[in-house]
Amino acid sequence: MKNEPKLTLVGAGPGDPELITMKGLKALGTANVVLYDALSHPDLLDHTPAKALRVFVGKRAGRHSIKQEEIDRLIVNYALQYGHVVRLKGGDPFVFGRGQEEIAHAQAFGIATEVIPGITSAVGVPALQGIPVTRREDSESFWVITGTTRERQLSSDIELAARSTATVVVLMGMGKLQRILDIYEREGRDDLPVAIIQNGSLPNEQVAIGTVNTIAEEVTRKGMGAPAIIVLGEVVKRHADFNHAFIQKTYLRA
Amino acid sequence: MKNEPKLTLVGAGPGDPELITMKGLKALGTANVVLYDALSHPDLLDHTPAKALRVFVGKRAGRHSIKQEEIDRLIVNYALQYGHVVRLKGGDPFVFGRGQEEIAHAQAFGIATEVIPGITSAVGVPALQGIPVTRREDSESFWVITGTTRERQLSSDIELAARSTATVVVLMGMGKLQRILDIYEREGRDDLPVAIIQNGSLPNEQVAIGTVNTIAEEVTRKGMGAPAIIVLGEVVKRHADFNHAFIQKTYLRA
Repeated sequence: MKNEPKLTLVGAGPGDPELITMKGLKALGTANVVLYDALSHPDLLDHTPAKALRVFVGKRAGRHSIKQEEIDRLIVNYALQYGHVVRLKGGDPFVFGRGQEEIAHAQAFGIATEVIPGITSAVGVPALQGIPVTRREDSESFWVITGTTRERQLSSDIELAARSTATVVVLMGMGKLQRILDIYEREGRDDLPVAIIQNGSLPNEQVAIGTVNTIAEEVTRKGMGAPAIIVLGEVVKRHADFNHAFIQKTYLRA
Repeated sequence: MKNEPKLTLVGAGPGDPELITMKGLKALGTANVVLYDALSHPDLLDHTPAKALRVFVGKRAGRHSIKQEEIDRLIVNYALQYGHVVRLKGGDPFVFGRGQEEIAHAQAFGIATEVIPGITSAVGVPALQGIPVTRREDSESFWVITGTTRERQLSSDIELAARSTATVVVLMGMGKLQRILDIYEREGRDDLPVAIIQNGSLPNEQVAIGTVNTIAEEVTRKGMGAPAIIVLGEVVKRHADFNHAFIQKTYLRA
């Protein structure tokens, strides 16, 4: 019996394998093929049937092992040959994930598609650190921006964001951290609280808390790098370490 | 044996009970008390132990049945008396949910706290309709704004948002829809695609697709109202109905 070709895009969440949805797990349980990347936790593969094909199509910042066009092609080939393809993607598949391109490509071949959202790191990772992206007295909105556009540049939206009252969350922005901070400094926002969280929700999670003019030093001191998210806004004050970081800064300056 | 007092804030996701995380379900399974609101699906209560107390603390737009201060107080009282309190909140507990206030209040009484993120409607509801909040050619960022601030006003962030290239998602904004559209029109963005999704991810989901200058009529025609989310941006073109809506508009105008 031939399986009906289908593509299900599943958001794996920020890292912790328990942050996948029930619905996402169910989809994994009926997969004939699962395509996964470096940001989705390996334990999730245990939820696929024993005979399912498991294919790594990982991409990491700066090292594109498999081109997007190749992934699009693999999805179609596997779906036509084996049936249900689950494309497991770190975070939410529609937040800077090129998920929509994968859906559109499969649909062009007449393949049925479904999207199962995941916890986006932009919201979930700060929350796990006790930082709310919105909070009545601090912020009426949050703005999520990519640090690495198609042309591998920082999105120009960051210039406007630095002038807004929104909590700003930058994904894939560690390579552009100094430029982001420069833009905020130019707007006179030197004292705005900033958090940087690497490997959020995982056992090797690391956090730096500071302000626009102290955070770069803190990141260097802790030897932090990608993948990490950058949170800029008054809400960062809610982090347990914030007062400590602020007092230290004031003391060092005095 | 007395249970240790604890508060776990759990995001229930946008509506579909299968869109809760594994971790959220596990927390429900160890609850002594669950406080839930109108936006979290009743089926989720089946995952709590049979002898757990189930307390409705619902709020709906415009009708505040129980004040926030009363919820804060209930959480502390139940935790001290019964042990593990799960506060189940629609969407993500830190996106316009006042979740951080509940956490801070409980911590002031020495109660241990934990946050388990949920799928925010701002990202998950458009995704389920095939609308990505970001897409390479259409948008490098998305901005999530409340339509109902503390003073029950539309956030002023919307003025800046209408000038940005971000995909803008307004939550709790249906009562202010005309004002939002007026702001976009004033910026000359009459043809910007707009989607409105009511009861997203549930069987009674309803969708209106159009542009800044056609969407209000569409909403009236379909008799749509709160709770709904508003998505403004080029990404709405990815919705299956968009071309149809656009052709209709062009035809009606000719």
